[in-house]
Amino acid sequence: MSGTLHIVGLGPGNERFMTQAAIETLKNADIICGYHVYTALASAVVPDTPVFTTPMRKEIDRCREALRLASEGKDVAMVCSGDAGVYGMAGLIMELAHEFDPVDIDVVCGVTAALSGAAVLGAPLTNDFCTISLSDQLTPWEEIEKRLHAAGEADFCIALYNPMSRHRPLHLQKACDILLEHRNPETVCGVVRQIGRDDQSFWIGTLAKLRDYECDMFCTAFVGNEKTRIIDGRMVTPRGYEKKPEMGSTD
Amino acid sequence: MSGTLHIVGLGPGNERFMTQAAIETLKNADIICGYHVYTALASAVVPDTPVFTTPMRKEIDRCREALRLASEGKDVAMVCSGDAGVYGMAGLIMELAHEFDPVDIDVVCGVTAALSGAAVLGAPLTNDFCTISLSDQLTPWEEIEKRLHAAGEADFCIALYNPMSRHRPLHLQKACDILLEHRNPETVCGVVRQIGRDDQSFWIGTLAKLRDYECDMFCTAFVGNEKTRIIDGRMVTPRGYEKKPEMGSTD
Repeated sequence: MSGTLHIVGLGPGNERFMTQAAIETLKNADIICGYHVYTALASAVVPDTPVFTTPMRKEIDRCREALRLASEGKDVAMVCSGDAGVYGMAGLIMELAHEFDPVDIDVVCGVTAALSGAAVLGAPLTNDFCTISLSDQLTPWEEIEKRLHAAGEADFCIALYNPMSRHRPLHLQKACDILLEHRNPETVCGVVRQIGRDDQSFWIGTLAKLRDYECDMFCTAFVGNEKTRIIDGRMVTPRGYEKKPEMGSTD
Repeated sequence: MSGTLHIVGLGPGNERFMTQAAIETLKNADIICGYHVYTALASAVVPDTPVFTTPMRKEIDRCREALRLASEGKDVAMVCSGDAGVYGMAGLIMELAHEFDPVDIDVVCGVTAALSGAAVLGAPLTNDFCTISLSDQLTPWEEIEKRLHAAGEADFCIALYNPMSRHRPLHLQKACDILLEHRNPETVCGVVRQIGRDDQSFWIGTLAKLRDYECDMFCTAFVGNEKTRIIDGRMVTPRGYEKKPEMGSTD
């Protein structure tokens, strides 16, 4: 009898931002798999459910074990931070599934850091936006640079994932230098650290200042478009209603 | 005494995909504001809470009324589908807030259609992605075209919001024609209709076929990157682990 492998997006680091579907899935699971920081979040909801975890960067082993457990008939919840798909494990599991007896695969979406971080800053992603990860672990840096140029030039709002770590201390600086080829240095930017956790903090400033901002691996950075501005301490990208008085009284 | 205005992302059309924070906010609210399709979702959770709604395209009036109610001391939940910020009302409310006595503004993030639709299709957004709305109600079409060229050229995965409506029957076709200038016609694409609702459905095909696919205003369309492929009937964008055997045993 084959089981089900649920890939579950837990949202940012707090049960409040989990969906009902995520919580229900955790409650029904026989076993929780994932990186220990995320399984800890799940265990806060279902403390008695067994956990299988592997060290960081052993994603392939972790996904294979989850598939193996499901192929034995277990109901398995593979947990990811944020969304299950966005830089998450859903794709890798689907790539590896053919190695095992067939299992049902169920993706449970969640709130990715672009959205949860945006809510902390105000409304920076109200118009077309993109996410770019500055980690070149799995994507060649040239490809990342190409996307930064494109996003800068076409005036996307941008959420930068993995902006900086000990292994890549200069990536955020390099990314900002590329964006500065296309954008005003005064472009409104923001950073949110430890989204949803007790020690959550944020910063709002300019693209010129973001370049030298001290991020770490717990940060997500945001770059506004040319219309983004600061209103009452918040980072706000207008959607364009100011040109559409027919959408409400005009005073 | 000033009240609080919560802008609440409800996720796709089903209570299962609401976050705990969204449900808690609805339960504490004195009044729900929003477009009637979304207030109906909220009323399924809190049937006894009063509702203020305005017709479609009266967003400015709706936001002003929500601000006015909050400035009178009420706890107001302005509800949006998906996320509160992504093409949502959070930005507009912050733009209009200065017209009223100060109120606390609280953004409650939610699962936007890019993420909930992706979960239905498989894992199409596993690498850098962007969202582009094909509605030119609030954004000039030239700006949309520029973003389509940029996203096509830099190989972003793309979620197309508002791909088609009676008012813009040709926008999806035009968008695909632009993407086809940069991408292989065999690029894997998908469409999800009525995400999270009982009559949810999806389609997976190619960019050449997406061009002539019959969408409506309940659809979100997805365009893969050059590595996206179909695995066991699902749309999957690899993250790049196949080049990183050190992230797990290599067989």
